[in-house]
Amino acid sequence: MLYGNALVAQSGGPTAAINATLAGIISAVSQVSAIEILYGARNGLEGVLKDNIINLDEYPWNDDKLTLLQSTPASALGSCRLKLPEITNTQPYYTILETFQKYNIRYFFYIGGNDSMDAVHKIDTFMKRINYDIRVIGVPKTIDNDLMHTHHTPGYGSAAKYIGVTMQEILRDAAVYTIPAVTIVEIMGRDAGWLAAAASLPRVHGDGPDYIYLPEVVFDVENVLKDIEDALSRHPNVVIALAEGVKTPTGAYLSESESMDAFGHKSLSGAGNALERVIQKQLHCKTRVIELNTLQRCASHCASRTDIDESKAIGMDAVRVALNGISGEMVGADTETSTVPAAQVANIVRSVPVDLINDAGNNVTDEMISYIMPLIEGEVDIQWSQGLPMYLIF
Amino acid sequence: MLYGNALVAQSGGPTAAINATLAGIISAVSQVSAIEILYGARNGLEGVLKDNIINLDEYPWNDDKLTLLQSTPASALGSCRLKLPEITNTQPYYTILETFQKYNIRYFFYIGGNDSMDAVHKIDTFMKRINYDIRVIGVPKTIDNDLMHTHHTPGYGSAAKYIGVTMQEILRDAAVYTIPAVTIVEIMGRDAGWLAAAASLPRVHGDGPDYIYLPEVVFDVENVLKDIEDALSRHPNVVIALAEGVKTPTGAYLSESESMDAFGHKSLSGAGNALERVIQKQLHCKTRVIELNTLQRCASHCASRTDIDESKAIGMDAVRVALNGISGEMVGADTETSTVPAAQVANIVRSVPVDLINDAGNNVTDEMISYIMPLIEGEVDIQWSQGLPMYLIF
Repeated sequence: MLYGNALVAQSGGPTAAINATLAGIISAVSQVSAIEILYGARNGLEGVLKDNIINLDEYPWNDDKLTLLQSTPASALGSCRLKLPEITNTQPYYTILETFQKYNIRYFFYIGGNDSMDAVHKIDTFMKRINYDIRVIGVPKTIDNDLMHTHHTPGYGSAAKYIGVTMQEILRDAAVYTIPAVTIVEIMGRDAGWLAAAASLPRVHGDGPDYIYLPEVVFDVENVLKDIEDALSRHPNVVIALAEGVKTPTGAYLSESESMDAFGHKSLSGAGNALERVIQKQLHCKTRVIELNTLQRCASHCASRTDIDESKAIGMDAVRVALNGISGEMVGADTETSTVPAAQVANIVRSVPVDLINDAGNNVTDEMISYIMPLIEGEVDIQWSQGLPMYLIF
Repeated sequence: MLYGNALVAQSGGPTAAINATLAGIISAVSQVSAIEILYGARNGLEGVLKDNIINLDEYPWNDDKLTLLQSTPASALGSCRLKLPEITNTQPYYTILETFQKYNIRYFFYIGGNDSMDAVHKIDTFMKRINYDIRVIGVPKTIDNDLMHTHHTPGYGSAAKYIGVTMQEILRDAAVYTIPAVTIVEIMGRDAGWLAAAASLPRVHGDGPDYIYLPEVVFDVENVLKDIEDALSRHPNVVIALAEGVKTPTGAYLSESESMDAFGHKSLSGAGNALERVIQKQLHCKTRVIELNTLQRCASHCASRTDIDESKAIGMDAVRVALNGISGEMVGADTETSTVPAAQVANIVRSVPVDLINDAGNNVTDEMISYIMPLIEGEVDIQWSQGLPMYLIF
């Protein structure tokens, strides 16, 4: 058994479930005698590099506080967008080592997406090379649901539930007027369409949006305009879900369509705004763009019970796996052992498979809905105070 | 006692509580022997003018269904944006009369904002002039909270709660990175700042956004940039709540700042985007614009219990008042009798009073928070099915 202290950090974009994973790690570590102290790094690897470390054991944890942490949105320890260099450039790795040595860190849990798995792989490789005995475990989280070797990712279920709930409300809102209008709902997802696919969920109660355009399908504006005209001929209120990452036949992001401000400066606008300009010009139709924006990743008040429970369990599993001697791997994989080498997840995107997209390429199949449904099941108990949810902030 | 049938219709922008008012009217009318049948007009006055009328008594109402209706977002009967002409142009009024006569309508309940109160006043005046015996009652709803002679309006509490809950989540999300960044949250309100003011609510649990800019205060870009620089000198993550209706010293909407698309066409953008362009140009700082958009008015999953209960009670009160012989008035007023002539509400905006805005004009006072707090109190019981809220749609 490897004795020493543990360090946990959070990285990449926040999710509504990333603190549930932290709660799982805190809970599991407290039951392990091999780990004496659990430290937290502020702002992911930034905190490790800058020795911005807090002692998490000093916080008076109990079940209520862990439950409150689970329903606190965004990364309670802060986050970063830091890409480690190749390990031939040893300088940052020695800085990380200094922090590990200073706090006698023998277990490092890094909660993040595919960039973070790259960090896990590199830190593990470096520490093995210099014979520093440590278990480096990647713990997945991303609303994007795009990690290789996973069935789904912690954080996705809550984001999908928020998108489903919100899309249901937008569909009701859009239906009230008789004037022909196109509502474009822009949903996150630069490379993969899993989040936009969740816009289909209202179909379980009746109708979903008219069309869903994913980054996996070439976005041909002429075809899209034909789709919209066709829908407008059937009913006045057309609703479209649009992934921010849809690309035109040239391979460019639709969002790269440029607009110029009054001073002649070019400014990038979103995919929704770009599509809006085309619709207004070609169809002379009333339009509205709704960007779901960061709320997709931080709407804890609308989190999925299933996602929160799973995210916590994956945190606990990370501790179990580390104690078993594993290092350089990511937990939560769809393998028998639940782990997979972090290098196999790093920097790769798991796209939506073609068979979950309809033949016309403008919607998802019912199989996609069957895939998402179990992930959004259940609601969390929010602790309300003075009309607003309570959070745990430290 | 006036015997006959009743007609109800919904108008203007949807709210999360407008169907609670409809539920109140349905519930109250069912207990009144003077009213035989309750009809509903589809799409407000559009349905009255086009004889698009449904018999609401044919729906199998019970307590469960009324509760489900209460938590269904947007206008269940549909809505319209229809402005009646002066009654010297009698043509539409005679068309309305035809519908009233065809269905023997003796009670007309119009749920809406200040445009709708204009319609209530005009229809009442016309029907009195031609001696058609009918009670025309205005029933207030607007998320804008800007109706004269009210303490607050049905629909505002739920919108304010959504803004408070969402702003809390955005503040957590914005806090995770160490890179200086300005997050601009654009909130509805062309003329009044009540909705933007609700962005202050997270202060009850700690900190709210750095600044809140309301339409009631002249938006001087130079001063605002100084505010932002000052906040950035204190912490990296600056969050601003911006009412869509803020106006520059020339009196123009900030949102009227023009941008040009790639083809040289001018296009209007929102206030948030306009401010973002200025910040990027002058402060060279990372920015993000989050428009809360229509979700402010349709997020039933996050409605205020107080608002929903009050909205239902006001619907019931409308029936009581009508049976007492009142006509041409709006219920829900802050008077002893709860009513006020609709003409005194029509087409006027109730602005945020100066004493609820801080001296610097860039935030609201604690008195404003004390005013809003009771209105967002309590949560509604959502009926979930397959991970999503259930609605009543007819």
